[in-house]
Amino acid sequence: MKNIKLIIEYDGTNYHGWQAQKNASSVQQTIEDTIRNCTGEQCTLIGAGRTDVGVHALGQVANFATDSTIPGSKFSYVLNSFLPDDIVIKESTEVDRNFHARFSAIGKKYRYLIYNAVQPSALLRNRAFHVNRELDVLKMQYAAKYFLGTHDFSAFCASGASVKTFTRTIEEISILKNHNQIEIKVSGDGFLYNMVRIIAGTLVEVGLRKFDYRYIEDIINSRDRRKAGRTAPSCGLYMVEVYYQ
Amino acid sequence: MKNIKLIIEYDGTNYHGWQAQKNASSVQQTIEDTIRNCTGEQCTLIGAGRTDVGVHALGQVANFATDSTIPGSKFSYVLNSFLPDDIVIKESTEVDRNFHARFSAIGKKYRYLIYNAVQPSALLRNRAFHVNRELDVLKMQYAAKYFLGTHDFSAFCASGASVKTFTRTIEEISILKNHNQIEIKVSGDGFLYNMVRIIAGTLVEVGLRKFDYRYIEDIINSRDRRKAGRTAPSCGLYMVEVYYQ
Repeated sequence: MKNIKLIIEYDGTNYHGWQAQKNASSVQQTIEDTIRNCTGEQCTLIGAGRTDVGVHALGQVANFATDSTIPGSKFSYVLNSFLPDDIVIKESTEVDRNFHARFSAIGKKYRYLIYNAVQPSALLRNRAFHVNRELDVLKMQYAAKYFLGTHDFSAFCASGASVKTFTRTIEEISILKNHNQIEIKVSGDGFLYNMVRIIAGTLVEVGLRKFDYRYIEDIINSRDRRKAGRTAPSCGLYMVEVYYQ
Repeated sequence: MKNIKLIIEYDGTNYHGWQAQKNASSVQQTIEDTIRNCTGEQCTLIGAGRTDVGVHALGQVANFATDSTIPGSKFSYVLNSFLPDDIVIKESTEVDRNFHARFSAIGKKYRYLIYNAVQPSALLRNRAFHVNRELDVLKMQYAAKYFLGTHDFSAFCASGASVKTFTRTIEEISILKNHNQIEIKVSGDGFLYNMVRIIAGTLVEVGLRKFDYRYIEDIINSRDRRKAGRTAPSCGLYMVEVYYQ
């Protein structure tokens, strides 16, 4: 058996998220079906992270086992010729048997895109969170610094998550404004359920001057989800990269 | 009668271009229908330029006459609440009676987006021209300079155009690379039919080293459409701005 690693870009708009489920089309299921059509084998595609309905990916990572004679580097070409055009395999490689897209990951990078203008954007509909009042980006940048480092992020985790620990390390966070687009980039060793969207939603509240930027520290320390801002919509979220050793 | 000017963004993917036509949905028709629904008046929307099937706009300009009591600046809000979300009125204002979106225009700016990577992009499908071999951007930048200034652009005009003169002035042209995206921005006093797309297609040939960059001068001087490169696909083209006095 060969172990094949895929790097995947997708537009999440028309999928019910990454994970295969009954009666709804998912990115995972769509790729698994395409692999089966190409290799004749039923496979299980292991994704680095489950993205929710409407979330996009520039660099989701997944792996699967196969006995196919298709060389690892050719899978991208073969699968792309059968996949719908809102899912693209950017790269495929044969990797070590022990490589596991989820368990081998040591970190991830996400981007959250805000479109800040009075009227929405036609081209960025389903691609960015439209905020129609002007955001104070400098205040958002001050606020962002509080997230850096190792913290218990319970206040930034949607309920229903079953994890052993809420402690995560954020290694980098940046906020850049380019015309009407505000891009939050965040990377860390792992993210809780909805963590990036709750961070983005909280930063938007700071930008709207509803929260003082220094209040972020109190929110983190409270470990109380109700203290943080609203969960920003899924369409603004992009899984950018998954890090491995 | 009031004269209302609109600045319009649209995703051209699902429209048969700007211009109203039988049996096909167009951006112009969609907005005219929406105005009629809001004001009860049948109107004619004059666009600054006709965009082809699949071409996008960030700043198309149009105007129409109305007796409606809706204030000029409120039309954007009213129309946006009825328009499909791939057409957005960015701004509406009441302007002088003599303002004509097409005849008053003194210049336009376009952008042409190329996605340069081995595999296509899921998120930029329908938004950029996918070129899978590496482009030499420096050579494209050298080539671009030949377009600057006033020239007879017959070699860069699709046949079937009925214009008095093929002379146009290109005031600015720039090519910027950002990761896998190459953006050509061009502004001038006017553009012939398919001119930006033929310029983009010709620059791609230079980037692929099929044409020497110095050859652009010969192509322009030939006034022969067959000497220039292929017309680049419509999905990469964006009408960015229309200039008025």
